[in-house]
Amino acid sequence: MERKIPQATAKRLPLYYRFLNNLQHQGKSRVSSKELSLAVKVDSATIRRDFSYFGALGKKGYGYNVEYLLGFFRKTLNQDELTNVAIIGVGNLGTAFLHYNFLKNNNTKIVMAFDADPEKAGQDVEGVPIYSIDELEEKLKDVKVAILTIPAQVADAVTERLVNCGIEGILNFTPARISVPSHIRVHHIDLAVELQALVYFLKHYPLNEKEEI
Amino acid sequence: MERKIPQATAKRLPLYYRFLNNLQHQGKSRVSSKELSLAVKVDSATIRRDFSYFGALGKKGYGYNVEYLLGFFRKTLNQDELTNVAIIGVGNLGTAFLHYNFLKNNNTKIVMAFDADPEKAGQDVEGVPIYSIDELEEKLKDVKVAILTIPAQVADAVTERLVNCGIEGILNFTPARISVPSHIRVHHIDLAVELQALVYFLKHYPLNEKEEI
Repeated sequence: MERKIPQATAKRLPLYYRFLNNLQHQGKSRVSSKELSLAVKVDSATIRRDFSYFGALGKKGYGYNVEYLLGFFRKTLNQDELTNVAIIGVGNLGTAFLHYNFLKNNNTKIVMAFDADPEKAGQDVEGVPIYSIDELEEKLKDVKVAILTIPAQVADAVTERLVNCGIEGILNFTPARISVPSHIRVHHIDLAVELQALVYFLKHYPLNEKEEI
Repeated sequence: MERKIPQATAKRLPLYYRFLNNLQHQGKSRVSSKELSLAVKVDSATIRRDFSYFGALGKKGYGYNVEYLLGFFRKTLNQDELTNVAIIGVGNLGTAFLHYNFLKNNNTKIVMAFDADPEKAGQDVEGVPIYSIDELEEKLKDVKVAILTIPAQVADAVTERLVNCGIEGILNFTPARISVPSHIRVHHIDLAVELQALVYFLKHYPLNEKEEI
């Protein structure tokens, strides 16, 4: 059944999950699609369609049951299973990730970091050890997800080593469009392109449209 | 005519632009949709469809003329007009942006930064002055685009001030889903959600599919 959820819907799951989690912490037991829409900035028709894929049908004048939805999402998002993640490159961006408390919101955990600077190796940030990039093959082992925050010039060489270590997923923050075998999943976030896309939309698309990309 | 380009196509423009720019620097005058596809990781059928919106028709055995495409993209992306950008929050992530040379690839320029820490105010990073957040209303003036890299707890209050300053677009890197009047464009990049989405896809979607989200 999970396989039938459209990818666009799947991408919104973590967002719904977080907001509903906050609601539950505030002691709320139900939520309307309109409230959700305002909070997560997705139109309510889309929310209702998304939720129908999960078999969650809102009731008129009542809305959705927060606990039911959370239970469903938790299962769907595999919240119960912890995924270990490695940071590759402890510059400003890598350090930002190390300070970012991912565990507060979901079950991913940064367990180690690597850097080419010998001065950084041996240190730790927020309890996460930093190893020399020379130790990549030795230390990475069970970690299957990596966040790439290294200079673009070394992205290809380091990616090749990650692939040889058996990495399965890479969140690529370098401007480089890295090449991987097709069984490895790469999500690419290029900060310059994100900024340019915003500026482009500002200039060319009329406001008041309220869509979000 | 620009208005007729689908948003999905529009979002790929900066990516095409950058790659073609690199090609030209390397002295290449033509490119096939297959080469482009390998480089930017978009399938070649999509590239051909995208390019047809620009009136660029590739020739069999020749491909696309790099200079023609660049000229078109440059005009379309308004590469000739510089957009000034402000960084709000000079922590690790904000500092990463300050070191990131946006100007190398496109015509956006970070011209100022703000931070609540009085020790940071008065300094500069890579030639960009850091002002106290207290000076926001006084200094922001002509800047219409802001990158939000402040703690989530203060996101709403600072956003309200940005709106009052006449900001038009916000690239929001805080986990907060900020509220703005509907004429203001917000692109939201939540690092935790990006990571969780990658992990979710890894677990639930078969590999070898090669789509990219």
